[in-house]
Amino acid sequence: MEQKHGGNIESVAKKYNIHKENIIDFSANINFVGPPPDVYSRLKKELESITRYPEMDSKTLKKKLANKYGFEKDNYIIGNGAVELIYILVKVLKPKQSLVYAPTFSEYEKALSTVNSQINYHYLKRENKFKLDVEELKADLTDEIDLFFLCNPNNPTGNFISKEEVKQILKHNEKHNIFTIIDEAFVDFLDRNITAISLLKEYDKVFILRSLTKFFAIPGLRLGFGIGKQGLIDKMNGFKDPWNVNILAQKAGEIILNQDEYIKLTKKVIYKEKLFLYQELKKIENIEVYYPNANYIFIDLKNSGYNSTAVYEKLAKKGILIRNCFNYRGLDDNFIRIAVKSREDNKKLIDELKKLFTYK
Amino acid sequence: MEQKHGGNIESVAKKYNIHKENIIDFSANINFVGPPPDVYSRLKKELESITRYPEMDSKTLKKKLANKYGFEKDNYIIGNGAVELIYILVKVLKPKQSLVYAPTFSEYEKALSTVNSQINYHYLKRENKFKLDVEELKADLTDEIDLFFLCNPNNPTGNFISKEEVKQILKHNEKHNIFTIIDEAFVDFLDRNITAISLLKEYDKVFILRSLTKFFAIPGLRLGFGIGKQGLIDKMNGFKDPWNVNILAQKAGEIILNQDEYIKLTKKVIYKEKLFLYQELKKIENIEVYYPNANYIFIDLKNSGYNSTAVYEKLAKKGILIRNCFNYRGLDDNFIRIAVKSREDNKKLIDELKKLFTYK
Repeated sequence: MEQKHGGNIESVAKKYNIHKENIIDFSANINFVGPPPDVYSRLKKELESITRYPEMDSKTLKKKLANKYGFEKDNYIIGNGAVELIYILVKVLKPKQSLVYAPTFSEYEKALSTVNSQINYHYLKRENKFKLDVEELKADLTDEIDLFFLCNPNNPTGNFISKEEVKQILKHNEKHNIFTIIDEAFVDFLDRNITAISLLKEYDKVFILRSLTKFFAIPGLRLGFGIGKQGLIDKMNGFKDPWNVNILAQKAGEIILNQDEYIKLTKKVIYKEKLFLYQELKKIENIEVYYPNANYIFIDLKNSGYNSTAVYEKLAKKGILIRNCFNYRGLDDNFIRIAVKSREDNKKLIDELKKLFTYK
Repeated sequence: MEQKHGGNIESVAKKYNIHKENIIDFSANINFVGPPPDVYSRLKKELESITRYPEMDSKTLKKKLANKYGFEKDNYIIGNGAVELIYILVKVLKPKQSLVYAPTFSEYEKALSTVNSQINYHYLKRENKFKLDVEELKADLTDEIDLFFLCNPNNPTGNFISKEEVKQILKHNEKHNIFTIIDEAFVDFLDRNITAISLLKEYDKVFILRSLTKFFAIPGLRLGFGIGKQGLIDKMNGFKDPWNVNILAQKAGEIILNQDEYIKLTKKVIYKEKLFLYQELKKIENIEVYYPNANYIFIDLKNSGYNSTAVYEKLAKKGILIRNCFNYRGLDDNFIRIAVKSREDNKKLIDELKKLFTYK
């Protein structure tokens, strides 16, 4: 469990006897700029609201989302983190057979196992840099499949497919009666607009999942949302209690949606830093660095002479936490993932990597 | 949905055109003293932790709970509110048939329906003041039943059964292979110690559910916990994501457990106020006022000439929100529930009731 997900600072601090505050966490893909400053001031002001129940089903936040992204309030559902919505959704859909590709976010599989779905895997190929080939995928999206998870951009590789390609998949799935969950947790970080939200108008069997904690840097508050047909959302509401979202998460959600300046600025800063980190990493010999479409960089260690656990441990000893990707289905101990952070932190990482690897 | 649960201030404010701040909420059974003041200062200090993921499975809080209540850390599970744990538990137990008495907390039924359990009802009798008769109950706890919910003290009546009676039920259920969930959400308010926690040593098929948001007045943060056999807890962990509890809820939970002074003081204040409110309410003619064992008072409107909706609406117009109990299974429109609040608020309620009812 310890390395199953990113962000487990406590256990690393303990294991390597480093003070928590001195660990730089490259393992969790959180916007390093931090939340819009208004979030702190608003939460400080609203702290006394903890004595009241959260607003049922987060109605206000749903209205604000509908204003921003379109559709009606009742097409939205708010989750205690996006992951909660995955668990609820599979309970509503009860897929007998499902298709998940690999590598991808591990919670899809875990959620499917709670409803005893038979999981079929579509393995992406290392030699294709784990890119999704829509034609090859379609061959596995047969009439037997009830549910398919599309992670766009994909985690941990950072690969994405275009809106046109998403449309091709939806068209195919609609014909074969396959429900599609599109997880767009990291879509806000992309330079291009690839969200499938507008496709909800054309296709019925689709649910779009979004996170508000990655781009807005509030993972501690747990906040995600989903958009789908109202009938589906109604059913999902029956599988959760009406106060599933913390009142402070609701308040934070309500204000981050209006932060246009912050969004613009953040995108610019992240773009600059990811390019810096990418270019520095490209100088290392005998590894393959994936271009960071989102805010994280996937690395194939190839002929570097190290496996992912060795790199993980060597960096951990120096107080640098990265994502060892050995436990992703479809990967082995040749892969690591690094979040883009501030210039100062990125430089520290580069310095340590320079000691470890041969540079071009 | 609007009156399904307590605490729905927003919709009342809108309907009766009253400013939210001017509504006194007697419908939610929250400790009116408010949270221990340390909660606010700690959360203010820890606000920046929202940029980190919550600690997985709330390990620190589990350790603290184990120190306070006994058993091991791994016997505990922390929920995003106690209700979340009910939903998870029924998924693990998958009861074909279950027994729920009426009236009681409505979420048991709702959770059971998510796993298609056949629900059998044991109706408590108005002429017995809805008291649970353990011998009569046992007659309905047959071999066909897989799961039974015991709400102790019961919501909305405030009735409780002794630890000895709980033991009799557990003994019976163990023999008939019936799993028992004991919901002790309001047990902290009682003057007597009736918690069944120590019985976990003697019985296997039991889970004890506790809330930390009622007594500690933090319903906005969502925080509950459960204690059970480690095998059961392990299975429950498989049905939730590891970050189900908000980081600020974790922090709050960690500090409230040590607040012995606050706990003592609060109990004293609530005792005084509930006695005051109870005695004043007893002066109303032709109604039956239940003794408030917890922090809420259940009232049978009997021959008062009003039904619960009339009382609810008349008070709502004055900015006083009570719980109209008409939608509890096993009740009708003859019952209301009132939380104990501050002397000032209680007096306002009494004043309005005096205008409405005949006093002795």
